[in-house]
Amino acid sequence: MKSDELQQRAINTIRFLAADAVEKANSGHPGLPMGMAAVAYLLWTQHMKYDPQHPEWPNRDRFVLSAGHGSMLLYAMLHLTGYDLSLDELKQFRQLGSKTPGHPEYGLTPGVETTTGPLGQGFANGVGMALAAAHLAAVYNREGFPLIDHFIYGIVSDGDLMEGIASEAASLAGHLKLGRLIYVYDNNHITIDGSTDLAFTEDRAKRFDAYEWQTISVDDANDLGKMDQALRAAKNDDRPSLILARSHIGYGLPTKQDTAAAHGEPPGEEELAGAKEKLGWPEEPRFLVPDDVRDHFNACTQAGREERTEWISLRKAYAKAFPELSAQFERTQAGEMPEDFERSLPVFEADKKGMATRVSSGKTLNALAGVLPELIGGSADLTGSNKTDIKGEPAITPELPGARYIHFGVREHAMGGMLNGMALTRGLIPYGGTFLVFSDYMRPSIRLAAMMGLRVIYVFTHDSIGLGEDGPTHQPIGQLAALRAIPKLHVLRPADANEAAYAWLSALQYREGPTALALTRQNVATLDRTKFAPAQELLKGAYVLADLGKGDPQLILMASGSEVGLIMQAAETLVEAGIAVRLVSFPSWELFKEQSESYRLSVLPTALKARIAVEAGATLGWKRWVGDGGIVIGLDRFGESAPYQEIYADLGLTPERIVREAKALLKVQ
Amino acid sequence: MKSDELQQRAINTIRFLAADAVEKANSGHPGLPMGMAAVAYLLWTQHMKYDPQHPEWPNRDRFVLSAGHGSMLLYAMLHLTGYDLSLDELKQFRQLGSKTPGHPEYGLTPGVETTTGPLGQGFANGVGMALAAAHLAAVYNREGFPLIDHFIYGIVSDGDLMEGIASEAASLAGHLKLGRLIYVYDNNHITIDGSTDLAFTEDRAKRFDAYEWQTISVDDANDLGKMDQALRAAKNDDRPSLILARSHIGYGLPTKQDTAAAHGEPPGEEELAGAKEKLGWPEEPRFLVPDDVRDHFNACTQAGREERTEWISLRKAYAKAFPELSAQFERTQAGEMPEDFERSLPVFEADKKGMATRVSSGKTLNALAGVLPELIGGSADLTGSNKTDIKGEPAITPELPGARYIHFGVREHAMGGMLNGMALTRGLIPYGGTFLVFSDYMRPSIRLAAMMGLRVIYVFTHDSIGLGEDGPTHQPIGQLAALRAIPKLHVLRPADANEAAYAWLSALQYREGPTALALTRQNVATLDRTKFAPAQELLKGAYVLADLGKGDPQLILMASGSEVGLIMQAAETLVEAGIAVRLVSFPSWELFKEQSESYRLSVLPTALKARIAVEAGATLGWKRWVGDGGIVIGLDRFGESAPYQEIYADLGLTPERIVREAKALLKVQ
Repeated sequence: MKSDELQQRAINTIRFLAADAVEKANSGHPGLPMGMAAVAYLLWTQHMKYDPQHPEWPNRDRFVLSAGHGSMLLYAMLHLTGYDLSLDELKQFRQLGSKTPGHPEYGLTPGVETTTGPLGQGFANGVGMALAAAHLAAVYNREGFPLIDHFIYGIVSDGDLMEGIASEAASLAGHLKLGRLIYVYDNNHITIDGSTDLAFTEDRAKRFDAYEWQTISVDDANDLGKMDQALRAAKNDDRPSLILARSHIGYGLPTKQDTAAAHGEPPGEEELAGAKEKLGWPEEPRFLVPDDVRDHFNACTQAGREERTEWISLRKAYAKAFPELSAQFERTQAGEMPEDFERSLPVFEADKKGMATRVSSGKTLNALAGVLPELIGGSADLTGSNKTDIKGEPAITPELPGARYIHFGVREHAMGGMLNGMALTRGLIPYGGTFLVFSDYMRPSIRLAAMMGLRVIYVFTHDSIGLGEDGPTHQPIGQLAALRAIPKLHVLRPADANEAAYAWLSALQYREGPTALALTRQNVATLDRTKFAPAQELLKGAYVLADLGKGDPQLILMASGSEVGLIMQAAETLVEAGIAVRLVSFPSWELFKEQSESYRLSVLPTALKARIAVEAGATLGWKRWVGDGGIVIGLDRFGESAPYQEIYADLGLTPERIVREAKALLKVQ
Repeated sequence: MKSDELQQRAINTIRFLAADAVEKANSGHPGLPMGMAAVAYLLWTQHMKYDPQHPEWPNRDRFVLSAGHGSMLLYAMLHLTGYDLSLDELKQFRQLGSKTPGHPEYGLTPGVETTTGPLGQGFANGVGMALAAAHLAAVYNREGFPLIDHFIYGIVSDGDLMEGIASEAASLAGHLKLGRLIYVYDNNHITIDGSTDLAFTEDRAKRFDAYEWQTISVDDANDLGKMDQALRAAKNDDRPSLILARSHIGYGLPTKQDTAAAHGEPPGEEELAGAKEKLGWPEEPRFLVPDDVRDHFNACTQAGREERTEWISLRKAYAKAFPELSAQFERTQAGEMPEDFERSLPVFEADKKGMATRVSSGKTLNALAGVLPELIGGSADLTGSNKTDIKGEPAITPELPGARYIHFGVREHAMGGMLNGMALTRGLIPYGGTFLVFSDYMRPSIRLAAMMGLRVIYVFTHDSIGLGEDGPTHQPIGQLAALRAIPKLHVLRPADANEAAYAWLSALQYREGPTALALTRQNVATLDRTKFAPAQELLKGAYVLADLGKGDPQLILMASGSEVGLIMQAAETLVEAGIAVRLVSFPSWELFKEQSESYRLSVLPTALKARIAVEAGATLGWKRWVGDGGIVIGLDRFGESAPYQEIYADLGLTPERIVREAKALLKVQ
């Protein structure tokens, strides 16, 4: 252990790297880094296991800065401990093209484990990481081979604890006894609006006791001895731990410490100078890292480097001892799919009665689960409805972390955040189910999955008024459009059982972001693919099912999901009336946009302007595909409670209406 | 008190009205009504104050069925207690056009206080109602005139308690000591997936203790004596109360009671007959209401009718004693605005430097607050950023419920749910602020505000990449489009200070639904309205700011919010190049759609096909306004962290780009 004096200077180095950066950027959050510098110091120098040269080492400890606004704390730590983040990058805090954006961004900065800032998300990510770690350990570890054996640490704020997603995730973490999860709560008594007394007076320790967490209160976050003791206690308990550390926002700032003014504004030159004087730090140079402090951090990271070297040996021995498991570990960590896995996709026979796409999705999931051990997921208490269970697989419990079905409870948002944490862990392809309408509950997590480019699969069933009697509260209207508005998210709404199978394939093959599957509650016919184009064409987003009638098509009918059945019926009538019709199945705008322009024009030729799009949801955005000459039949109102056929009829989603509109468009009787 | 036997038959009447209705509909949720019939009986016959002929009596007790899937419990109670809901309506459960949809719908069925079904929402609505009741009591009650003096009761389920929104709202309810709030928790140990042991093992009583609620455990929800005692204790405590009532889902069903099968499926004929036999109920006729049971309910509602009559007398005396307050009460209960209140709207002078629309919004709010005492709201811990505070007004505390600023804490979702509860209470116009990107966190509540047609105002600031350094985590991209996808929601993105003022006017005048204001963090010029059309034109959704250049316009440039400044700059250059340009400010699609076709064509003439739309958000949906011949300049990617001017430049949202694209469109150099 180094001298107290050196430790304190190391901690002040962190504080003032952060404060100098915020001051230079004239933007940012100095309060958290200054208040929690000692905690970060302790974690990085004495508790966390990591190798800064190998930030993707699978057995590293994870660190989640759920209070992402304190990003400079993390950047300072990554710089000081030798990650690939230069002092120049710190000086470019919050500038265009830097690796030090306002909030930590996964994939941009080495060592940043997850993108945080929207409060509560990191908290749930960490729970997902802890679940993933427990699962991977159960699956891969063997006697004498602790391949996965690490902790998830985090710093969480008042804001994190107030957010509902954190409550949901905390409850589940306690239930699942995720003992490798250790959060330090930056208990600084201050939020943006002022004192926590304004709105947050609950007994936080008692609340986490109720969730079956270990809670440890520390009266001074700057007391290294007490914090160290607390962290040791946390590691030695099989429950998740919350260390409530009384801290001081903007520690050292002469007038702003312990005030909301320290939260999210530059300290100002005078205040910054005052803090440096108070803590015995030279006013200049800015961004000072004393040599002995740098040496000290270097020395502290040595143990981690060695642990990784040992792990590499272990990994090699493991490969010899368990070649199959080892290969699976290697493949799944790399995110690769097994060769020819797509052969496992089920093929559904043509069938007029058909089945709900949630059912074909479930069958596909089960077929894939057999060849993809990395598939792991569950439902927010709608297992039977979402068809997300894997037959014969038990559910994960504290005693059975190696299982791969998760009962998330009625906690959609935590599910979303946890799926992100599981995907971030690598080695797993997580999925989660709920009703499409409740995608709203988890939308902030979906957005972050997209921003991080995580392969997460959402199984959203009951995807329209077709769910029937549950009525408007449960019938999605704007949800498809709202999901389509999220960059990088793929939204897939398959039209029949075979499209549903390929939708899963598409989701698995898309490694740069999440996929939302929108699936019916009600039966849809399984198309006869000898008469219509193969379902594999789903992978192109939109495709010509068939050109019907004589001569060149006069009209394009396009639809997604269950409404493909409607346009097919309408087409029959139109063809009988002598009108040639092109039928387009349009399961995914995003996939279609990714195709070549020539392909897109081959499906939707410029010259063919008479077009009708049909979807049982908001019409928003469809105009792009039908053009000025076309019309959109959808729903810009909330639904109804009744047997679904009656709702379709009442709201005008019928073949008859389509025929009528088509004839009007073509100006024929 | 009636004989036990009659009470039990009254309770069985409730159970079997519900079970018969679900069986007839072949769809629905029998479990909750059968398990909680005794609790409902007790509430409606011995605790709740209401007059079934006057379901809008302001001083009635409210009942919130947060577990909305148990709708038949509520419908049975409303029928039996004499609300305008016939037995025939009960027989039409879940049928097209009935007043008994799958989940309770506010505005459709007399006595339904809020639309529920999406779990956790009702919980938060009730907290908002309790806050509103405390506030109205403080504002209007005078010595001897307890004008507002009622409770908010509710039944909440496992699912409600698991949802994050309920955690958020519960924490705030405890903080604010909303003692008039009394929830009975249907502690039936069963969720859809099975036993609550699967995912929900936290200590719920301890958790609510931590929130500073009174918690009372009752070991048998069917024990009228114990439940009565618990309800009395709840009423006599100044904290909100949670009564954890051990219940039995599907009580009476021979094989399905206490199983997930009782939750959401018809019992089946055999099971239904078995339950009737078990509980001593005749198998036929269905929908049986014995005469003495009906008489009993009638007798029990007599007290409420009398209380209302007394209240009417009180109300008259109040009008004499406090004519001004009385008039204000009358006006605000009716939801009417004071005459000429719009004269209070501030007028902002033309100013090139201008101000952020969040600032002009704040000034407008403050001006309106002076004449509209019913304006009440707050922010999810972003008061200074959202500019939602009313100067000089203190914040609501347990001791000061009559104040009208609310520190919601970092609890966007609870804020959304509570705003709904406050609007449902009547007499208030609630508003709430957060960053636009975090509208995602409260989206399920926004959707329900729209579905219920509630006048709620969302103050969403930091509405684009224009927020700058906080970066992509905080920069909304798809949020405007996602909000536009919600039926009945008005989305307004004003372009300058005077449009911001009229945006508030629009929100106040729109009584059929909520309004979302999207406001800038950064300054925008205040337009010179002597040169451009008046800002009042915002009320039409889109309007011609000016036709610039010589002759008829060759091009339409349209934009919303801060991007209006960009098209104005681009127009200058284009006009210099000899191109005549029409400038259209487009703050609201919804308002524009509500205009006559002739007005819409006057702004966007069919013949004028060269159009460019500019908005710093997802392009989704704009194609509708620019048509096949036009282009959309927006952002279909996540943002960046940097000073905002640099982000705009880097992402191509510049006058130069618009000029270039315009010239290309017009095929001029």
